[in-house]
Amino acid sequence: MNEVNAREKQAELLQWLGDHNQRAILEYLKDWHPADIADLFYQLQIEDRQYILSILGNEQSANVLLELEEEDRAELLDNLTATQIAQDVIIEMDTDDAADVISELSDDKKKEVISQIEDSEHAKDIVDLLRYDEDTAGGLMGKELVMVYNSWNVIRAVREMRRQAEYMEEVYSVYVVDDDQKLLGILSLKKLLTTSSNTIVNDVYNPKFRAVAVTDSAESVALDIQKYDLYEVPVIDELGKLVGRITVDDVIDVIREEAEKDYQLASGISQDVGIEDSIWSLTRARLPWLLIGVAGSLVSSRILDGNLDAMEAVPMLILFIPLIAATAGNMGVQSSAIVVQALASGSMKRTLGQNLSKEVLIGILNGIALALVLFAFSAIFYDNYLAAATISVSLFAVIVVAAIVGTTIPLFLEKKGIDPAIATGPFITTSNDVIGISIYFLVAKLMLGI
Amino acid sequence: MNEVNAREKQAELLQWLGDHNQRAILEYLKDWHPADIADLFYQLQIEDRQYILSILGNEQSANVLLELEEEDRAELLDNLTATQIAQDVIIEMDTDDAADVISELSDDKKKEVISQIEDSEHAKDIVDLLRYDEDTAGGLMGKELVMVYNSWNVIRAVREMRRQAEYMEEVYSVYVVDDDQKLLGILSLKKLLTTSSNTIVNDVYNPKFRAVAVTDSAESVALDIQKYDLYEVPVIDELGKLVGRITVDDVIDVIREEAEKDYQLASGISQDVGIEDSIWSLTRARLPWLLIGVAGSLVSSRILDGNLDAMEAVPMLILFIPLIAATAGNMGVQSSAIVVQALASGSMKRTLGQNLSKEVLIGILNGIALALVLFAFSAIFYDNYLAAATISVSLFAVIVVAAIVGTTIPLFLEKKGIDPAIATGPFITTSNDVIGISIYFLVAKLMLGI
Repeated sequence: MNEVNAREKQAELLQWLGDHNQRAILEYLKDWHPADIADLFYQLQIEDRQYILSILGNEQSANVLLELEEEDRAELLDNLTATQIAQDVIIEMDTDDAADVISELSDDKKKEVISQIEDSEHAKDIVDLLRYDEDTAGGLMGKELVMVYNSWNVIRAVREMRRQAEYMEEVYSVYVVDDDQKLLGILSLKKLLTTSSNTIVNDVYNPKFRAVAVTDSAESVALDIQKYDLYEVPVIDELGKLVGRITVDDVIDVIREEAEKDYQLASGISQDVGIEDSIWSLTRARLPWLLIGVAGSLVSSRILDGNLDAMEAVPMLILFIPLIAATAGNMGVQSSAIVVQALASGSMKRTLGQNLSKEVLIGILNGIALALVLFAFSAIFYDNYLAAATISVSLFAVIVVAAIVGTTIPLFLEKKGIDPAIATGPFITTSNDVIGISIYFLVAKLMLGI
Repeated sequence: MNEVNAREKQAELLQWLGDHNQRAILEYLKDWHPADIADLFYQLQIEDRQYILSILGNEQSANVLLELEEEDRAELLDNLTATQIAQDVIIEMDTDDAADVISELSDDKKKEVISQIEDSEHAKDIVDLLRYDEDTAGGLMGKELVMVYNSWNVIRAVREMRRQAEYMEEVYSVYVVDDDQKLLGILSLKKLLTTSSNTIVNDVYNPKFRAVAVTDSAESVALDIQKYDLYEVPVIDELGKLVGRITVDDVIDVIREEAEKDYQLASGISQDVGIEDSIWSLTRARLPWLLIGVAGSLVSSRILDGNLDAMEAVPMLILFIPLIAATAGNMGVQSSAIVVQALASGSMKRTLGQNLSKEVLIGILNGIALALVLFAFSAIFYDNYLAAATISVSLFAVIVVAAIVGTTIPLFLEKKGIDPAIATGPFITTSNDVIGISIYFLVAKLMLGI
């Protein structure tokens, strides 16, 4: 569809919404994926969103709700009674999604909704899932899985799969357990399809499998799924009992969010916010980092205040304050980003010493290159070779120190159990600003004797 | 295994490697996943890596090679003849992995290896895949898939699946095509398992499916797979013919790399490098950005040079140069990061005007808060209210302008087809430094009459 057509269609849809033309709207949205309807919602008023949800079937409208951002979902759910949420929305969702949606409700509404879920097994599963922290395997997992006993034969396994999978969209693996529901292994559907009916499951399942513990962190589950190229991973409790499964699509969000979080922290944004968030949330996520930057710069201002004499003696020193500060910041951010990414992706195989010696070498190489550029520029423009040399030597020293600081801080934070990504943001720029300016005047005093 | 045990084991392994104790090494590595063996390799010398590869079975050693970084893989493959690569390594790999590995070889070796592949169908598939750019769906896809004709009955489909899937580790979907191999739909294994044998495939397949075009960009495939929660997506050519399939695990790497690339660019690292890369590659990826920063700061130095009189008249102005520059940079980076992430995740639903007005409001809020902090600090420390007010007003103006610049530049770049992430790095910090310092002295001259 080209842009003109799309705009015409959109105008038409708004017309239909105004007229509450149910038939036309449903016909238009007939083959749309819930994710696309959710995208459309961002261009519509709340009343229109409500209207569309009310005319879509329960399953489709539950799926659209799942695709929305938390705030937008909350706004729409606020309009429904607990009974409607339980019986029209939650019932249509997989247990993991249902638990996520319920956990977003107020405490009162949460209880009411749970009490209104008619299918008691579904309710039990959801309540069970609500116990887990959302950042753990338990918080990610769903209860929808096909479980067969090792003592069954293949025909019974297939029959049971059919029964258990009735409400599941797709089945990729069948989990084999013993009488205590301890996970023994996996049976692929391919194997089920190609094995004769009266073979005993115990003789054909694959006992080599990877499972995660229900208490594992979501991040470590994500790393496992990436590292071992898994589609689905079973979740077991302390006794080895099968309690759920995590699929790769649940984990993709974790992977993306982790990467985005690191990027946001590096950009001085402290919470997981996006362009659709309110001005207030965005300000709250950003102001603290700006304040850290301002606080650091106020320290710099005190250092400069103590060096006004030197600047009066050699005013040329003033001109390169921004250069020293900016380069120290840039170098530190680069060094720390390399370390943070290695830590985040699990590819950090070296010791602090190895990393430091490499970074210092990189700092020396870059430092020499940039110092030469600066020397050429300042010698040509200001005709004071000693001052030019002083500034260039300072820049070199500042770069090497910034590399050391940028490498050390994230490794130190990681060791202390703090997310090292916070080091890559304004935090490191600011501390390198302060350190850089201090070094600058130290070198200047030594070399110029002022 | 605790740390002491791990270290003991490692010492033992090194002993075995020294003794070429094949039996002990194979026993130790027996149940290891190739990804874990690859991790182990990073702690071993090249000779030991070669030795381990030579004693592992072909399949296992091919899988270990796939898990290594490109450079490390190249080093090991350099040691093998074209015949060995073709007949011991490539033969064990899926077509997409095989094509990736072959594409990394030198042109001469590439041809030699291809000519040595014994299975002619495998060779044909690989040559076919080598035609596609690695950043497209064609470059990501593999040829391993199960394809059944719509005219077959279920029993024939199962039999064919068994034959076609003989060398495939897992099968999740069976693709249904017509006589021209045009993709008609998908048949899940669950459906195959639960349908009676003589039903015609045409009556039971699911005609609703998502496919990607072979020329689609890898990034758009990744966005689709995320958005629609797919495990696997079929790839079709211009005629709708099924030519391959892309699995979610191939795409996870694309998703992670995209997010990491944005983060790296934001940190001033211009190529996809990691902590294991050589000092030379790392310097090359970083120096250009540092140079941009230095070049910008040299512009700043000229601006400062033109304002030495003003600083002589009110030396207090000198003290807050780092603050103005740093805050302008920080604010600009925040604004651009929000826009870049929205663009990257496909969640940008607003126009430039809407974004700008929101960002300006956020700038005004943050600007007021920070200007008040600065005013209080400078008024207390320096007892010059007019100068304090001047500096604070400057800061406010600089923040608002930085927000506008930070929002506009990435949207402008996106429109021009340039990756907007490059705007979030030192590029934006630097330009905001220069703009910030210009505004600073402009406001100072106006308010202080100097």
